[in-house]
Amino acid sequence: MAKLIDGKAIAATIREEIKVEVRKIEASVGKVPGLATVLVGSRTDSTTYVRMKRKACEEVGIESFHTELPESVSEEELLSCVERLNADPAVHGILVQLPLPKHINEERILSAISVEKDVDGFHPVNIGKLAMKSRTPRFVPCTPRGCIELLVRSNVSIEGKCAVVLGRSNIVGLPVSLLLLHRNATVIVCHSKTQDLPSVCRQGDILIAAVGRANMVKRDWIKPGAVVIDVGINSIPDASKKNGYRLVGDVDFDDCKDVCGMITPVPGGTGPMTIAMLLRNCCDSAKEAFGLS
Amino acid sequence: MAKLIDGKAIAATIREEIKVEVRKIEASVGKVPGLATVLVGSRTDSTTYVRMKRKACEEVGIESFHTELPESVSEEELLSCVERLNADPAVHGILVQLPLPKHINEERILSAISVEKDVDGFHPVNIGKLAMKSRTPRFVPCTPRGCIELLVRSNVSIEGKCAVVLGRSNIVGLPVSLLLLHRNATVIVCHSKTQDLPSVCRQGDILIAAVGRANMVKRDWIKPGAVVIDVGINSIPDASKKNGYRLVGDVDFDDCKDVCGMITPVPGGTGPMTIAMLLRNCCDSAKEAFGLS
Repeated sequence: MAKLIDGKAIAATIREEIKVEVRKIEASVGKVPGLATVLVGSRTDSTTYVRMKRKACEEVGIESFHTELPESVSEEELLSCVERLNADPAVHGILVQLPLPKHINEERILSAISVEKDVDGFHPVNIGKLAMKSRTPRFVPCTPRGCIELLVRSNVSIEGKCAVVLGRSNIVGLPVSLLLLHRNATVIVCHSKTQDLPSVCRQGDILIAAVGRANMVKRDWIKPGAVVIDVGINSIPDASKKNGYRLVGDVDFDDCKDVCGMITPVPGGTGPMTIAMLLRNCCDSAKEAFGLS
Repeated sequence: MAKLIDGKAIAATIREEIKVEVRKIEASVGKVPGLATVLVGSRTDSTTYVRMKRKACEEVGIESFHTELPESVSEEELLSCVERLNADPAVHGILVQLPLPKHINEERILSAISVEKDVDGFHPVNIGKLAMKSRTPRFVPCTPRGCIELLVRSNVSIEGKCAVVLGRSNIVGLPVSLLLLHRNATVIVCHSKTQDLPSVCRQGDILIAAVGRANMVKRDWIKPGAVVIDVGINSIPDASKKNGYRLVGDVDFDDCKDVCGMITPVPGGTGPMTIAMLLRNCCDSAKEAFGLS
C-alpha cells in the first residue's frame, strides 16, 4: 500500500501557520488581511465552495467580504463590483467564483481584477509571469500551488524527475506544468488527444491527474513507485450513501494504491490545499500592502 | 536522406504574401505599416539582426524607424524612447533588440511596450494569453510562430503527435511548447536537468531543438522518421572559411539527416522564418490599427 499524502493534515498545518501570521500582522499594523468573494447566481457547487472559503478565512482571522449577485447580473454591473473591490483598501484579495453565467465574458472580468489583488492568480499578467523563466508572478493559482506544496512537504524531489500532467486546463493542468518545469522536472503534458495515454502516464515519476473524469487512471497507467497527485473531484452515484453519491478522483484509488509510492486521497488530498493556498495568497497580499513582506 | 524543410524558400513565400498585403493596405488607407527598431549598444550580433530586420521591412514596403542608443543609456531614457514610440501612430510594432546591457531591467522595458505594438510577443500579457486555453494573444513570438508555420506549410500534422521541445527559454522553448499544446500535440519539455536526454528526445514524432549548443543532438536522439526543427544558430571555428567560423544548429545535421523524415538546415531553416514572422506580426498590427482586420 502506497504512503498516503494527507492533504487535510498538511492544509491544517498551513492554516495554523497562517493564523499565527495573521495575528502578527494585526499586532503590527492593527489591521487584518481581507478577502472579497463574489458569487454570481446560485449554483450548488459554487455556493458550497464560496462558503468553505469564507469559513476558512474566519478560522484564521482573515476578514471576508461577500457579495452575491443574481444570475441575471449584467457584465457592466459585475465589472463595477470588481472596480469597487479593487479600490477598497480593506480588500487584499478578490475571488470571483467561476464558472460565470454564459452571458458574461469571463476573460474580461478576470482581467479587470487588479493584479495586486488577483489571489486566484488567473490574470493574464500573472499567468504570463508564471510561464516565463526569471519572472515572479504576484500570485500563483491556488490548486497548482497546492499540488507543489504537497510534493514539497512530502519530501518528494522534483528536479530531474519525469512529471506527467494529465489535463491542460487554465486553472490546473497548464499552471502546474509550468511550476513543475520551473522546478526542473522533465514535463509531459498529455490530454484527450494523446495517443496511448496509459503508456505516456506510466513514464511519470510524478503523475498529476487533473482531467475531471472519475476513476480514469488505472494501475497500469502508473509507474511502480510513482507519486500520484489526484486533483479530480468527481461525484458518482452510490446507493449506499444517504445523499446517493460519493466523491472520487480521476485516479481509481483502490486499483492503484498498491502500485504507487505515494498517493493523495479524494476527498482529503488536493481539495483542502486549494483553500489553504487561497488563504496563503491573501495573507501574502496583505503583507505586501502593509509593507511587511 | 530526410526531406529538407527549406525555411529560406518558405520565408520568401511569406514575405511575398506580406508585400502584396502591404500594397493593398496602402491602396486602401494611404498608409503603410511601420516598425520601430531600438538598438542599445553595439554588439555585433544584435547590430546584424537589426540590420536584417530593417532590410526585410524595406523589401516588403514596411516603413522602419530606427533608434540607436549608447550602451550607457539609462533605463529611464530607454523607457522614454519606448513611450514615445508607443504614442507614435506611424509605429505599429516596437522591437527592442535583446539582450540589453546588464544595468537595464529587461522585464521592465518589455512590459512598457504597448501590448498593441508588442510584435515580439514578449509582453507578459501576450505570454499569459498565449499560455491559456481559449485566449487569443495579440502577438505570438516570432521564432516559435515560425516553427509552427514551417510544420504547417510542410503538411506535418501536429494533433495527437508526440512533440519534444529541447530547451525552455522564454523566447523559443517555452512559447513553442505552448503553441504545440494548443495544436493538440502531447508535449514533452526537456532541458539540462533532464535525465537520459537521448531517449526522451527519441520519443518525439516532432523534435524542436532550441537549446543553443552546437551539434548536440545526434542520430540516436531521433526517432526514425521524425520531423526535426533546429532553432539553434551556433558559430563554431572552421579554418576552411575565410572568416574562420561557420554556423551550425543544435542538431548534428550530417549525423542525423538519414534518420529523420524531415529536417531544417542551419542556416536557412528557422532563421529566415523569424524575420518573416516579425513582418507578419507588424503587418497584422497595422491592419488592426487601420481597422482592416
